[in-house]
Amino acid sequence: MPMLADPSVKYKPYPQINLPNRQWPTKVISKPPRWLSTDLRDGNQSLPDPMSFEEKKEYFHKLVDMGFKEIEVAFPSASQVDFDFTRYAVESAPADVSIQVLSQCREDLIRRTIESLVGAKKATVHIYLATSDCFRNVVFGMLQEESLALAVKCTKLIKSLTKDDPAQQSTEWDFEFSPETFSDTDPDFAVQVCTAVMEAWEPTKEKPIIFNLPATVEMATPNIYADQIEYFSTHIPNRETVCISLHPHNDRGCAVAAAELGQMAGADRIEGCLFGNGERTGNVDLVTLALNLYTQGTHPKLDFSDMSSVIDIVEKCNKIPVPARAPYGGSLVVCAFSGSHQDAIKKGFNAYSKQVKESEGKNVHWRLPYLPLDPADIGRTYEAIIRVNSQSGKGGSAWVILRNLELDLPRGLQVAFSRVVQQRAEIKGQELSNHELCELFKKEYFIDYYDNSDTNDYQYRLMDYSLTASKQTRKIEVDLEINNKPIKIAGEGNGPISAFSNAISTGLGIDIVVKHYSEHTLGEDSDSRAATYIEVLFEGKITKWGVGIHEDVSQASFLSIISILNGLHKDKHI
Amino acid sequence: MPMLADPSVKYKPYPQINLPNRQWPTKVISKPPRWLSTDLRDGNQSLPDPMSFEEKKEYFHKLVDMGFKEIEVAFPSASQVDFDFTRYAVESAPADVSIQVLSQCREDLIRRTIESLVGAKKATVHIYLATSDCFRNVVFGMLQEESLALAVKCTKLIKSLTKDDPAQQSTEWDFEFSPETFSDTDPDFAVQVCTAVMEAWEPTKEKPIIFNLPATVEMATPNIYADQIEYFSTHIPNRETVCISLHPHNDRGCAVAAAELGQMAGADRIEGCLFGNGERTGNVDLVTLALNLYTQGTHPKLDFSDMSSVIDIVEKCNKIPVPARAPYGGSLVVCAFSGSHQDAIKKGFNAYSKQVKESEGKNVHWRLPYLPLDPADIGRTYEAIIRVNSQSGKGGSAWVILRNLELDLPRGLQVAFSRVVQQRAEIKGQELSNHELCELFKKEYFIDYYDNSDTNDYQYRLMDYSLTASKQTRKIEVDLEINNKPIKIAGEGNGPISAFSNAISTGLGIDIVVKHYSEHTLGEDSDSRAATYIEVLFEGKITKWGVGIHEDVSQASFLSIISILNGLHKDKHI
Repeated sequence: MPMLADPSVKYKPYPQINLPNRQWPTKVISKPPRWLSTDLRDGNQSLPDPMSFEEKKEYFHKLVDMGFKEIEVAFPSASQVDFDFTRYAVESAPADVSIQVLSQCREDLIRRTIESLVGAKKATVHIYLATSDCFRNVVFGMLQEESLALAVKCTKLIKSLTKDDPAQQSTEWDFEFSPETFSDTDPDFAVQVCTAVMEAWEPTKEKPIIFNLPATVEMATPNIYADQIEYFSTHIPNRETVCISLHPHNDRGCAVAAAELGQMAGADRIEGCLFGNGERTGNVDLVTLALNLYTQGTHPKLDFSDMSSVIDIVEKCNKIPVPARAPYGGSLVVCAFSGSHQDAIKKGFNAYSKQVKESEGKNVHWRLPYLPLDPADIGRTYEAIIRVNSQSGKGGSAWVILRNLELDLPRGLQVAFSRVVQQRAEIKGQELSNHELCELFKKEYFIDYYDNSDTNDYQYRLMDYSLTASKQTRKIEVDLEINNKPIKIAGEGNGPISAFSNAISTGLGIDIVVKHYSEHTLGEDSDSRAATYIEVLFEGKITKWGVGIHEDVSQASFLSIISILNGLHKDKHI
Repeated sequence: MPMLADPSVKYKPYPQINLPNRQWPTKVISKPPRWLSTDLRDGNQSLPDPMSFEEKKEYFHKLVDMGFKEIEVAFPSASQVDFDFTRYAVESAPADVSIQVLSQCREDLIRRTIESLVGAKKATVHIYLATSDCFRNVVFGMLQEESLALAVKCTKLIKSLTKDDPAQQSTEWDFEFSPETFSDTDPDFAVQVCTAVMEAWEPTKEKPIIFNLPATVEMATPNIYADQIEYFSTHIPNRETVCISLHPHNDRGCAVAAAELGQMAGADRIEGCLFGNGERTGNVDLVTLALNLYTQGTHPKLDFSDMSSVIDIVEKCNKIPVPARAPYGGSLVVCAFSGSHQDAIKKGFNAYSKQVKESEGKNVHWRLPYLPLDPADIGRTYEAIIRVNSQSGKGGSAWVILRNLELDLPRGLQVAFSRVVQQRAEIKGQELSNHELCELFKKEYFIDYYDNSDTNDYQYRLMDYSLTASKQTRKIEVDLEINNKPIKIAGEGNGPISAFSNAISTGLGIDIVVKHYSEHTLGEDSDSRAATYIEVLFEGKITKWGVGIHEDVSQASFLSIISILNGLHKDKHI
């Protein structure tokens, strides 16, 4: 039985917030937040192998290209490297991008921090101070009033060194204060500290102060965090001069939800990292948040249209792979392996394509089974969507054949081929690649067999034929090779296929009856080839499918029957 | 600027639920749900390389060992392998574990499915039918009433083949019905279908019917899902005969939140996978859900006390690595690289250890900065918590030295050593291992230098000494070797350290003044060694730290001063 110790000895339930009139559960998010990327600060701190200077530069420029207007680049007072990188960012940022840097509440560090920003077009000074009982007592040994006084003192110092300094007027200054461990802080004390800091900074509606409210170590369910944000948002005075920023951690796996419910509760800004990097379980994943907005019809004002390049840079610089199942970016998330999923997606694509064709350019709502986002929107191809292993059904293989060989298999042939695939996949014990699947199909149905004439399986070959059509009948003379021996046969019927199969039955004594015939053209040129699919009943009990491809549709159907004969021979029926 | 297309062309906001009197935001989760592992069914479907039969067996037994009482093992009608595995599970499951299997709503498949369960002690038959407009229209071409009729027909068939069949009375039967795409289904229709299915099954309070309500493709924020669950829970008749099961997908990255808010909204049971495996972005992660409960003081009734073995089996069988930042299980989640985090954790551990010592066996509430869960509870060691790279501060290195060498460095020495570490880490460009860090410390402070006598750095050696104590003074005669040449010096003072440093100053002309001295014992035996830490001011301007370890505390302090002399020599001051 469970060996996990009794948790009530050590752990307590999280406290609730008294919020009798909560509003957030009825809100919807209809505009994007201000985004702050902290990849280069917090994220970079927690990498086993931190980024090199060159990697930080590359990452920084990618963030700018993606549309980030606020980027936290370093903790400049912590090391020369961080200071130097801040200088690089200040000197190379576009005019509309604010460079944000972090400092502890210590005068020497703050002075050094502001030095690093001199000459910036836009800059945000960000200081933090732990406000929870746990942190104040254990880590800093500080009373509530001491914390508050220190926060105010540091704010005033920053004000005097930035927006109040006549020498610093060429920079547009922002100020961010984080009551660290906000989510574990008495909500009234959080409001009290922030009110005091606000009075010291004197923000305006045009230039609001940023209060960053972290869900430090994510201690509770995300609804509690939303309650805390709504409480703060409705209790902080002069709300219009305040920008509420969220900084959700992911220790309980709910950072994305916390950020979304937090926005519903009143937040204006989100701090996070691409693919949720950061200390421990990471900060909230900005890719997921942005594309969640996108799939709800709201443009996130960040660009993920070339997702591969985003993944490349994140993996190169962080040296941590994007998980295979990460929303939107993971390698497996636009794939379907299961048969019923593949089938539904295939039908969905067909229905959607039809709607788009019929819409005459009007908007068509994207609504596909198992695909909340059109992979093309983020630069991923349809080809990757359906992958085939032993657990896949007919739909997946059919999809791959359609996409790669342009053959739109009839349902019965899908079923027949899926058995072949399943058998092969079980033997292999691994996923079949698209290439393997196509080769398997060609081999099973003797496509391109003239190129593979040395194989014993290809017993029956069509060497030539002469078809004579009159008003009532079609007569055919056929030159075959069977096991390399030439044989002439003849037959007749009311169409070319019946004539050909009659020749097979009478000339070779092979009893086949055509049960299904269909065809389609490959491509849309005038010299397009035709693909034909024929199912026969052999000796009244065995069904067999054949596939033939040729510029002439009749000849394609003869090749289908030859394909069937080779199949029957391979299966030792003839 | 952003190239991501205008989403309003293709995507719409998710609809809200009309729930004027919603209750869930004020609820707390105070008991564990019924857990259903679907790792071996859905999860296995979506692996690029599916599990072998042997791997499935191993995984199955691990799930049983961890305490799972409901395990979905296969889709037995889909393949012979799945059928055979169901037989294996039926025959080897403990009496209290229910074997669950999945089937589509088709008579032939249902009959084959129930065949696979014959002889089980406990079994759950699970059927699903898509109920949303999108799926019904696009995939199945079925009207609402046709779906409902099919669900009822299949339910009756299953009833007749299981609990109503006199030959099947040795099995305890459960029945689960999933209105697939529940989250995209008109809530009233979901209730209507389930009510009809319930009437067909005739559940009791003792043996409730399971309605599994998936958040298919996770189409909305988790509060909307909670609204849907509360709506269902409050509108389904005979609620006491119903077990509401959740099956959250993770396409928007909110599956854990959806499961938690869904429980607050009334759900009784959760379906998911270890570390969130499953199609695309996966099903909800049961590891996170269970340990989220644990850290709130509620025992999940699943055992994760040996997390490494869980990770091992998941990675081996799924062939997909557990992400480095996965909550609780990721390799980086109990690590801190940043200096301020490391410092806070170190202080937190010290405070907690003190509280535990003083508590005399009473419960001590776990409340550590940046560590919501005691890593020891899931079998992870403290050693892994703090890791050191160029971004780390003094706290991290000090922690590693404490844990590995048992040396509790005074603050000033922490600062001095952290500069050495930062320099080395910047040169290396990578994380320093604990071993590297310890070697660096020993080299910097000349610990164990007698073993390394061939190194040029070790210029000053203590060969012997004679200390004479009287009531007023201590006199010392010291035999040194400097660069392998013997030298005798003498000094006096009011204690052994002052006598020794006086000998250094007068005998060698090296001007040192002791500014700090502290010591502690290593271990708790009677023959424990002492570690001493001494800081001196050299020539009135350079501070230098030394470390000495010896069974005799005086001799340890002499070694500290020798350590300082070697350091001053290495830095070319003497």
